[in-house]
Parts: sequence; C-alpha cells; structure tokens
Amino acid sequence: MELLTAIRERRSVRKYKSKPVPEEILMEILDAARLAPSWNNTQVWRFIVVKDQGTKAKLSETLRPTNPAKAAYLDAPIVICAAAQRGLSGFYKGEAATNRGDWFMFDTALAMEHLALAAWQFGLGTVHVGLFDGTKAEEILKVPEGYSIVSMTPLGYFDTPPDAKPRKPLQEILYLNTYGESYIK
Amino acid sequence: MELLTAIRERRSVRKYKSKPVPEEILMEILDAARLAPSWNNTQVWRFIVVKDQGTKAKLSETLRPTNPAKAAYLDAPIVICAAAQRGLSGFYKGEAATNRGDWFMFDTALAMEHLALAAWQFGLGTVHVGLFDGTKAEEILKVPEGYSIVSMTPLGYFDTPPDAKPRKPLQEILYLNTYGESYIK
Repeated sequence: MELLTAIRERRSVRKYKSKPVPEEILMEILDAARLAPSWNNTQVWRFIVVKDQGTKAKLSETLRPTNPAKAAYLDAPIVICAAAQRGLSGFYKGEAATNRGDWFMFDTALAMEHLALAAWQFGLGTVHVGLFDGTKAEEILKVPEGYSIVSMTPLGYFDTPPDAKPRKPLQEILYLNTYGESYIK
Repeated sequence: MELLTAIRERRSVRKYKSKPVPEEILMEILDAARLAPSWNNTQVWRFIVVKDQGTKAKLSETLRPTNPAKAAYLDAPIVICAAAQRGLSGFYKGEAATNRGDWFMFDTALAMEHLALAAWQFGLGTVHVGLFDGTKAEEILKVPEGYSIVSMTPLGYFDTPPDAKPRKPLQEILYLNTYGESYIK
C-alpha cells in the first residue's frame, strides 16, 4: 500500500473480529515499530503482545466503563501494550535535557504510529488507547519500577472501517516563520 | 512508495542541499501531519514553517554547538517547528486523566512521524530535533504562553542517505502477555 494512502485511510478501529492474525504479519507490524527513530537511539520501548484472554479481560477493566474500545480487548485476538523506560529518553547525565521533560511519550508515539500504519496496510485495525488506569495496567502486566505502560492497542481484523474524524484545515494549523502568522492567507 | 519501504528506508538526515522544496509537495507533507490521530481528536499541534533565513539561523543557535544538525538549519530551505498546546491532550475537566501526564508529546510525535515518512516518500529528508533550548526557541517563534515547541526538523533534499542506525532485535523488545516473558524463545 502507498504510504500516503495508509496515512489518509487509516482509522481508529474499535470493533474487531476474532479472526486470528497470522504470525508472519504480526512480526512485520512489530518490526515496523522497532524501526522507529528515538531520542539518541535510546529505544526505551518494549512491546507486550497480549494474547491470553484472561489478561486481555483484565486490561479491558482498566478502561472506563464508557470507553468504546472496552469490548475490543475481548474481541480482538491481540492487544499490544507499549511499555517504556522513564528517565532515559530526553535525559543527559541523569538530568532532563529539555524543558519538555521525559521524552518517553514522544518516542513511544513514533513507534506506535509505525505499528498502526503497518497494521493498516495489512488490513488490520488498531486504536491508540491512552485513557486507562496505568497503575493497574502496570500491575497486570508486571511492569518493573521505572517503566510505564504508555499506550495500548487492540490488533485485529474488522468489518467496516469507521468514518473519518474531521481534522482542522491546514489554514488553521500552519504558520509562516512565527506563531500566529497565517501561512495560507 | 510502499509504506513498509518508507518505514524501512527512512533515515534521519542532517546534511541538506539548498534546492527549494516545491510548494505542492510541502503541502502534501504537512497534510500528512494534519491527518494524524490525537487524544480525543484534540489536535493540539500547530506547525510553523520557517523559510526566513534569519529565523532559521536564530533557531540553529538554540542547538548545542556539537549538535550535528546545527548546519542543517542554514542549509535546508525549510525548518518545520511543531508547537503544541499544553494541558489539553490527556486531560479531562482540567485534570490529567492518566499517570502519564500531558499527552502533547505523544500527539506531536504521531503527527511529526507522519510528516517524516511523507517527506521521505518525496525524496526529502527530516530529522526529529528535540535537544534545543526550548525557552529560546519559543521566544524566537513568538509562541504564546501555554504552548511549547516540542520538536523541529529541517526539510530538504539531500545527496546520500545516511547509513541505518542499529536497532535492538525483536527478541529483545517483545514480550508475551507480561513484561519480561520472552516472545521469541
């Protein structure tokens, strides 16, 4: 699939089929995450591939009752959880090197978007789930001290892709040379 | 270009030619950023397209003297700066909704990686620059209170793509069901 097609057509999928994901496709998708750039190539992420139905059910319980992705944890054959070490990316000699603090969120997002796009090109859905009880998820996944579960995504086949969510037009989000100077007049 | 080709072949480029970037290609690349998903579709990012040579020179000065991307700010015809509003992505009713704080870094990374991949498919280089004096960059770019410059990237043509940086093998970064359980035995 063309890169720009994947970027344009990718949707956040919250309704999955139980159909299994072939192992070789799963490895291609995870390899796309692995190839993501990161702060000073620190690669602070680890990916927990959850296939165990009981663990998926427990993770689903870390989402709020109203979260539309809740059932996806049970239906999709796989949930991928991104764990990241804190205090390393964006740090220099143990000190935060920028006024933006820890870069674990930035680096994990780079990798998880590679994963989401790669999944899409194989006809598989994902959705970046961030709103969950992190402390509980870390317990369930036995994540060591100093690491966080940044985000999770179900991974699986789906019937119909959801409609596109609206985005702000370029006029509203582009500036020229300084903030606030419209790029497109 | 195939999505997986772009993901596999993309490199962080730090040496640029001054050759101008056609406006229609620039717009395609920025549109790829615009289409990125974000926390509750908050789209907290804005993209400042810096073409002014004086501003690029000032931004270059916010990098450390040893940063290999420093000259790129002068050579590349464009520097794109990602500004993001703080306290919105990852928040619910004004409170951080997760134990990972503000999601502005996560969302900006998703958008900037769309941009980097789209640039690559047009034969253009980028590099995520995070290590710079953010306070100075925010002054130069006249970024309002409550916003940060998260990252910047030169954008331009280049002669030879750099060699691939090594990545940890999948064996080291994949776990099954819980943290620490090797996925690949």
